[in-house]
Amino acid sequence: MDGLSWIEQAPDAVARTAPPVRMGILSDLQDFAASAMGRVENALDESIAAAESEGCPPRLAEAMRYTVFPGGARIRPRLSLAVAWACGDDDPRAAAGAGASIELMHCASLVHDDLPCFDDADRRRGKPTVHLAYGEPLAVLVGDALIVMAFETLVRCVSRKPRRLGALVSIVGRSTGASGGITAGQAWECEPVIETALYHRAKTGSLFAAATMAGAAAAGASPHAWSSLGGMIGEAYQVADDIRDVAGNPELLGKPVGRDEALMRPSACRELGLKGAVAKLNGLVEAAIASIPECPRATELRLLIRREASRFLPEDIIRLAA
Amino acid sequence: MDGLSWIEQAPDAVARTAPPVRMGILSDLQDFAASAMGRVENALDESIAAAESEGCPPRLAEAMRYTVFPGGARIRPRLSLAVAWACGDDDPRAAAGAGASIELMHCASLVHDDLPCFDDADRRRGKPTVHLAYGEPLAVLVGDALIVMAFETLVRCVSRKPRRLGALVSIVGRSTGASGGITAGQAWECEPVIETALYHRAKTGSLFAAATMAGAAAAGASPHAWSSLGGMIGEAYQVADDIRDVAGNPELLGKPVGRDEALMRPSACRELGLKGAVAKLNGLVEAAIASIPECPRATELRLLIRREASRFLPEDIIRLAA
Repeated sequence: MDGLSWIEQAPDAVARTAPPVRMGILSDLQDFAASAMGRVENALDESIAAAESEGCPPRLAEAMRYTVFPGGARIRPRLSLAVAWACGDDDPRAAAGAGASIELMHCASLVHDDLPCFDDADRRRGKPTVHLAYGEPLAVLVGDALIVMAFETLVRCVSRKPRRLGALVSIVGRSTGASGGITAGQAWECEPVIETALYHRAKTGSLFAAATMAGAAAAGASPHAWSSLGGMIGEAYQVADDIRDVAGNPELLGKPVGRDEALMRPSACRELGLKGAVAKLNGLVEAAIASIPECPRATELRLLIRREASRFLPEDIIRLAA
Repeated sequence: MDGLSWIEQAPDAVARTAPPVRMGILSDLQDFAASAMGRVENALDESIAAAESEGCPPRLAEAMRYTVFPGGARIRPRLSLAVAWACGDDDPRAAAGAGASIELMHCASLVHDDLPCFDDADRRRGKPTVHLAYGEPLAVLVGDALIVMAFETLVRCVSRKPRRLGALVSIVGRSTGASGGITAGQAWECEPVIETALYHRAKTGSLFAAATMAGAAAAGASPHAWSSLGGMIGEAYQVADDIRDVAGNPELLGKPVGRDEALMRPSACRELGLKGAVAKLNGLVEAAIASIPECPRATELRLLIRREASRFLPEDIIRLAA
């Protein structure tokens, strides 16, 4: 867990920080929030179970489950669900599958990024990394298998609305591939010169943008208008991560702090200082909320985003930066 | 190059070993064979070029091209094209894209299989392996990027017939994933006990089966009837590879021989002896040809398969096994 609690606030907690809203909205929000995490976990379990069928080597199956469960905050797939919900959610199964596809890509990238040839990390989500638990060969293969599984999940989840498949495969593919996707993001670390904005957009922003776009596409809405929202939330999330990397408590984060500095990675904190980075984070959140396109539940979605973003940083870090 | 020359025979060479056929068929065959390799290379180039656009780190782009070009015999994508052609080929762009998708998956698996944690290979297709040329991090990322690119290629290539996308994504996904796909095949090497048939079917047969099925699906035919043909050609190809691994000339193969023995991999030669393995190879080829479903150019396809299979092994090995 990384300390985020996307959309799980009780309605009264929301009401304290947001403008007054009618009770029906808060009740809808409550219903949605209560079901979101369960829908994500079920969709992920269904994808893994499909891959575990005949022909899957037992240790590979075990390592895939180890990688995906238990998860972190599942912020990306819940963002997909939130956007699909805001867009009317006419096919909840498609929305859950789209979110699961994004999360599987995220898990795949974590396993590969943790490998000895990259971060050489020993802990992830509070337990040994996959290559330490299952060996490096299976860690490489788990990543490969989860990438493939992400696309298979899309086919299965849109079986009732097959016309949505093309957009979903394009969105997920673009956000993970060599052209500005998370693979490109990681590959920037292998370049002699790194352009910070491009690096962050690819490494983090791309998958967040895909989360919002895929949520819209899964609900039959035009995905392009939703790219900015995800991209800016992703950038804000990355800035918050940079800040926690410098100022955070390793026990809260579940992974070592100071990695960016140790690996000489681009960091908003190193470029702007702690105070500047916090100001940047706040600006990004406001811009993200302002970018939400017209949709059936735009008000609800604005509430959700504001509330979640207020929890990007622990109180003690905000005080530190004040 | 691995010594195979799929469907590039001059018509007179075909006529010498096959039953007499009418000239129109041979002329069609000639036309098809003359264009097949070019269509594969163009489709691959289009996929790489799309990924190289804005946002791709330069060294990643270079490493992807290094991995995919120059290729081997492109036996899988040309098999896709041959099946699509046999089925009427009503959308040549879809067929070329389907073949390219399969070949990109094949290239991705080669890069990852060559990594130090697997085969630790230093040569591939006559030049240094990707991790030696570009470092291990980029080799991992090239594999990831090519897997994603394979699915993006499918979306692009079926833009005129979007209803075919679901079948194609399913076929390519299943053949590469954890449930009997090439990832499973490689993962069997990490298990304490390996079941040879399952291992070979996953590691080699699955992608060959996908090549024939994707060729059929790209041409609007039902893919399932085409699974056996690809599976058996794949198994024959693997048996031929086992035989070459034991008896072949390393200069002809472009990679070290004796790797299976050194790595204690399952091998038809170790199980059946050289003579038994050659008999198995011949039986598989006959069964493959007999499995070809009814389709507009079944006669032509039978000719192609028989001719190609006769070149699976160099003459000196066949003499050695006689």
